[in-house]
Amino acid sequence: MNQKLGKASMKPEQPVYILNSASVVGTKEGQGPLGLLFDKVGEEDMFGCETWEDAESTLQKEAVGLAMDKAGLQPNDISFLFAGDLLGQSIATSFGLSTYQIPLLGVYGACSTCGESMILGTMSIAGGFADKVICVTSSHFASAEKEFRFPLEYGNQRPLSATWTVTGSGAFVLSGETGQAKQGKGKPRARITGMTVGKIVDYGLKDSMNMGACMAPAAASTLEEHFTDFASQPGDYDKIITGDLGKVGQRVLIDLLRDKGYDISEQHMDCGIEIYDGDSQDTHAGGSGCGCSAVTLSAYILKQLEENNWKKVLFMPTGALLSKTSFNEGKSVPGIAHALVIEAI
Amino acid sequence: MNQKLGKASMKPEQPVYILNSASVVGTKEGQGPLGLLFDKVGEEDMFGCETWEDAESTLQKEAVGLAMDKAGLQPNDISFLFAGDLLGQSIATSFGLSTYQIPLLGVYGACSTCGESMILGTMSIAGGFADKVICVTSSHFASAEKEFRFPLEYGNQRPLSATWTVTGSGAFVLSGETGQAKQGKGKPRARITGMTVGKIVDYGLKDSMNMGACMAPAAASTLEEHFTDFASQPGDYDKIITGDLGKVGQRVLIDLLRDKGYDISEQHMDCGIEIYDGDSQDTHAGGSGCGCSAVTLSAYILKQLEENNWKKVLFMPTGALLSKTSFNEGKSVPGIAHALVIEAI
Repeated sequence: MNQKLGKASMKPEQPVYILNSASVVGTKEGQGPLGLLFDKVGEEDMFGCETWEDAESTLQKEAVGLAMDKAGLQPNDISFLFAGDLLGQSIATSFGLSTYQIPLLGVYGACSTCGESMILGTMSIAGGFADKVICVTSSHFASAEKEFRFPLEYGNQRPLSATWTVTGSGAFVLSGETGQAKQGKGKPRARITGMTVGKIVDYGLKDSMNMGACMAPAAASTLEEHFTDFASQPGDYDKIITGDLGKVGQRVLIDLLRDKGYDISEQHMDCGIEIYDGDSQDTHAGGSGCGCSAVTLSAYILKQLEENNWKKVLFMPTGALLSKTSFNEGKSVPGIAHALVIEAI
Repeated sequence: MNQKLGKASMKPEQPVYILNSASVVGTKEGQGPLGLLFDKVGEEDMFGCETWEDAESTLQKEAVGLAMDKAGLQPNDISFLFAGDLLGQSIATSFGLSTYQIPLLGVYGACSTCGESMILGTMSIAGGFADKVICVTSSHFASAEKEFRFPLEYGNQRPLSATWTVTGSGAFVLSGETGQAKQGKGKPRARITGMTVGKIVDYGLKDSMNMGACMAPAAASTLEEHFTDFASQPGDYDKIITGDLGKVGQRVLIDLLRDKGYDISEQHMDCGIEIYDGDSQDTHAGGSGCGCSAVTLSAYILKQLEENNWKKVLFMPTGALLSKTSFNEGKSVPGIAHALVIEAI
């Protein structure tokens, strides 16, 4: 039996498999420490399009196409898409995925969207409602700056607590069966064995140039709930991986959890810290955006699980639930974080 | 066994019950033909807040609170919230629901969000992952005009094909068990027995002042898929109910389906047409917005099912996947529509 666990968690009776996945990124990500691991690095960040928004749509389209190719699947093989992005009314998704004509369930969780889409996808498969689904999300540095901050032409200075939105999209093919991957080792990349859904956590912070600090309380809340629901400890995971807290948020998260009686300093890893070389790439606190955790999961984390360097990780993308309207109206920046237990095959 | 049906549909093994629900609306909706049926009509459309966005958040907060009250439940009884709205980055949801501290899965389907949230909620319960969930969505005339069109102070003229965004929020408590409702008849309001997920349909229309026409092809696509997947016919439903096509979209939908061999002219009803008296209320083609289908479902459609005036309806909110950025960049307005089979107890 599938089950609800504790207050916020779920456990599928059978694991749901990540059959295959794909990552498509921009030039800066290609030049970063994980650059050689991504499936595709764009030659330029417009990806042949005329607007930043179309460029982001292209990222999603290519990531989904590539993920299907790598799994040897066609659009007809996919029951549902679970997809979303950071832009107002999720237009990167709406204009990126229509070409596939796959039934679509749109998701919004800010930069936690990768986790949320995989939780819903897992639920649909483990619940018997779908055969295979694809979960996809994206972000683009330039479309995000336009959406949330300043025109790029303005050339504003960025404080050291700011993060740099990742240009990239990650897509994941989930299935209840192990399937037969076309490329790679002919076995799924990993399996999803548990999930914890986050709630909105708002400490009243208002600094959109320090989103790591805004999101860290939500990450701490979901982690504490996860450890309680699964009766687990930090040491049960090889890595506890947040999406895009960056260097400031990481410190806040570790401190907050210490207050709750958990020491995650050994296990913690943040996709935003891994994806850039902050010193040489001028990215300050780290990377951020829906794409940050998605491409890092596909290119780096799943590879570590495949190679058995890690056996079991907790993957927890973090989202900052602001808009330019809420920011301009002086509201705080609430956070949310959703977690998945992902294990090696 | 729960099952996937055909290309885009799902059927839970056991029905999922709508235990109770609530509708909270603004002044104009209170003065409309359904005015007396809504649970709560605001005295003024700011709902005591300082911004339109906060007013919309208040709508969601009150609808969820009222739905729980009517079902005799507390926040602790609710496993998950499935919620979303029309505003960029869904801020009505983020700032409206944090007070309940219930794990949240954010949804974006433009004005199809009510349907999408109930599909995901049904999936979570029928899949064994949740006990009770609440699905909620909202829209507000003034926050939507600001988000998508012109400042209200500008006083622009609106063409007759334009719709009027409903100020309102509808919340639905779903459960796998029939439960014991506190108010009303002590039995659930209705049951959900089937679902069809829509895909993005884009006929290339670009007129955001004629969203009915933009969304009708998506409604036609989902309906055709639904009839195929369930081997059903229009006559199998007492009503086939779209969310907010309005008068123009209704004509387009009926014509498109006639071309596909289905005559729904007798069964079709549109929430946007029902909610206002277009002649006296100056609402032109009808009502629209996430709240339109949600409050009409809660106040009117479920009541008809409770009173056994109708036995089985197909409820299909329709969404227009545009943003002000996509509109300003000259893009089309793609549509999407998600359908649920809702039956009397």
